[in-house]
Amino acid sequence: MIASGVATSYLSHLQCSECGRTFDADRPQNLCACGSPLLARYDLTRLAGALSPAALADRPRTLWRYRELLPVRDDEHVTTLGEGMTPLVALPRLGERLDLSRLALKDEGIGPTGTFKARGAAVGVSRARELGIERVAMPTNGNAGAAWSVYAARAGLAALVVMPIDAPGVTRRECAVAGAQLSLVDGAIADAGAIVARAVADRGWFDVSTLKEPYRLEGKKTMGLELFEQLGARMPDVIIYPAGGGVGLIGIHKAMSELRELGWYDGPFPRLVAVQSAGCAPVVRAYEAGERRAAPWGDGETIAFGINVAKPLGAPLMLDAIYDTGGCAVAVPDPELLDAMHELARLEGAFVCPEGAATVAAARRLRETGWLQRDERVVLLNTGTGLKYPETVTADPPVLRPGDPVPDGH
Amino acid sequence: MIASGVATSYLSHLQCSECGRTFDADRPQNLCACGSPLLARYDLTRLAGALSPAALADRPRTLWRYRELLPVRDDEHVTTLGEGMTPLVALPRLGERLDLSRLALKDEGIGPTGTFKARGAAVGVSRARELGIERVAMPTNGNAGAAWSVYAARAGLAALVVMPIDAPGVTRRECAVAGAQLSLVDGAIADAGAIVARAVADRGWFDVSTLKEPYRLEGKKTMGLELFEQLGARMPDVIIYPAGGGVGLIGIHKAMSELRELGWYDGPFPRLVAVQSAGCAPVVRAYEAGERRAAPWGDGETIAFGINVAKPLGAPLMLDAIYDTGGCAVAVPDPELLDAMHELARLEGAFVCPEGAATVAAARRLRETGWLQRDERVVLLNTGTGLKYPETVTADPPVLRPGDPVPDGH
Repeated sequence: MIASGVATSYLSHLQCSECGRTFDADRPQNLCACGSPLLARYDLTRLAGALSPAALADRPRTLWRYRELLPVRDDEHVTTLGEGMTPLVALPRLGERLDLSRLALKDEGIGPTGTFKARGAAVGVSRARELGIERVAMPTNGNAGAAWSVYAARAGLAALVVMPIDAPGVTRRECAVAGAQLSLVDGAIADAGAIVARAVADRGWFDVSTLKEPYRLEGKKTMGLELFEQLGARMPDVIIYPAGGGVGLIGIHKAMSELRELGWYDGPFPRLVAVQSAGCAPVVRAYEAGERRAAPWGDGETIAFGINVAKPLGAPLMLDAIYDTGGCAVAVPDPELLDAMHELARLEGAFVCPEGAATVAAARRLRETGWLQRDERVVLLNTGTGLKYPETVTADPPVLRPGDPVPDGH
Repeated sequence: MIASGVATSYLSHLQCSECGRTFDADRPQNLCACGSPLLARYDLTRLAGALSPAALADRPRTLWRYRELLPVRDDEHVTTLGEGMTPLVALPRLGERLDLSRLALKDEGIGPTGTFKARGAAVGVSRARELGIERVAMPTNGNAGAAWSVYAARAGLAALVVMPIDAPGVTRRECAVAGAQLSLVDGAIADAGAIVARAVADRGWFDVSTLKEPYRLEGKKTMGLELFEQLGARMPDVIIYPAGGGVGLIGIHKAMSELRELGWYDGPFPRLVAVQSAGCAPVVRAYEAGERRAAPWGDGETIAFGINVAKPLGAPLMLDAIYDTGGCAVAVPDPELLDAMHELARLEGAFVCPEGAATVAAARRLRETGWLQRDERVVLLNTGTGLKYPETVTADPPVLRPGDPVPDGH
């Protein structure tokens, strides 16, 4: 299931995303002393001479096909449930409705745990195991905690998860069935984060909170590598992404930079769009003010629970990615994203999570303002399956007795 | 997303599985006049000269890579959400526990709609569309109805679905969000079937009930084709499959026969094992009596709702597949399959549906009796994700206030 034994990681060191200080990649690391996230760096010059995109063709159809650009050194530490290489699905009927002729959905709902969080967990857990870490702890809005719980179980690691009491119910069950140590908090993800920080300080758990260890990001960046491959060594013109912690957006930007440095891609970067709910839009507010740092939002509220992140640690990196690519940030109100969720399902058969649906609503707005042009290649990134959010759909079917006919009109 | 325009279907005709009578494949067909299912037949002699397994390597990683062995003639009718090529995941830790050294899981939970039903719906809907059918109707235990609803939506077809009131709740939402015409029945799938039959007779719906049209089976057979490819042009020694309607089991057997006829495979067939719940085991009872037809079970009851099928139309074909391959049929009680579900998640990180978990319980029993040998290559077929069955897991985590520590012991 993993790439051939010939392939290995080209990881060289870690580097602070703000102050540039470097760190040993082969020891467990969290944030830089300056408080900013560390980024994994690879020996891309050497790799450019050793690997060509064509050599990937025969690799397994999981994210482990990018073995050289991932941090795990030894095959025996790779912890996989088959994650990655999610479908890129054409959306012709929705595209016609939105007046976008080349609209597609990168559907991360189709993967282990039903969300893109599986990517970060697979790589993060694999590398933690390789570095000898035995106990990982994290706050979560649900899906990341579920993903880390199941991958930790597979790797034989202990997992401590704290999530808001309002997080999607099924994610509790995922943590529980995998044997994680789960607590709920009557508060938001920041409150969960504070509880985890204390467990890390007092009880020796290793902190795998968003961007507080460098390898979850490496799993997420594979979405960008895959889009490049799936489009035939091209990039789309625009990628629309629902941004909470923003790791996927930052990761896609990092992937594009690495592809360019490898000499595999020399075209323009796709414009990266961060979509947030109008109920919690710190990055949109910062973007509209032209700033690089985002003030905390206060009490966020949205049905798109995964992007209810009032104070994302990665906001500067997200805003860098947006400015660097000529992208933008857009807020959409909950009713619009719920309508978009139904519209997508009825026209294209894709039942996506509210976060993913937000990208549909954003595409409509951006086309209406002319920011998107009709024939641009636009990819909507759906971060998870609608199956995990059954309450977003009202179903009130008639109940028949045996022998009844179907209701009139059917 | 679909196979190159060069590839096309080698479908030649339809043939009754019992009396052998042949039918025109390019007209809509349901059952034979003798009441038995029709099977799609291909010009395998001609195909053997035109295609080699190696030619598949560069094909898209969906079930449409088997374009020649599928019934859809024209690319424009292919209705896809990226289904197929689900992971084959090694289970080393569970294998050690069960004393099976080469145990793996074919994980159909990783696909559109989260179940293997997507395969049958993708091919069935595509071919229905090609034949000019505009309205499809079916009874379902939930997941097939959900899958047909979303693929019908994508293809622009109307769907009428009737399911038992006890079917998994999320499948109602899937039908609803896709715009299907859904009714519940206060009864079992046979009662739903009777209601659909009346709508077919009185209101002109096309009947796509299990095995009552020939193309759902063609989608399901791709599981067998994929296993052959994923194991490097080999077959496992044993495939353990949770059998309700049994279409997957019948399909895998059909796939093996076609591979042999093509000259691509000349080894022994894997022994096919049908697993049922002890609460609804008509096929197991028939197998134990050495019969080829299964008497109706009466009132079935099991938490593995998808295999609560008291009177499967395909029982003779299932039993043929079992006898032909030297397989067997096993019943497991609900508590065993629930335990197995948790065991699999804790050891391997895979959260599977109760039906899939039944295969774990069956493997344990078959190893204990010596029917399975330690070093045989055994594939468990998980038909769906546990995410659709949240009620099978108890989660009762502590609720903290902001600022609380995690509970002692965490």
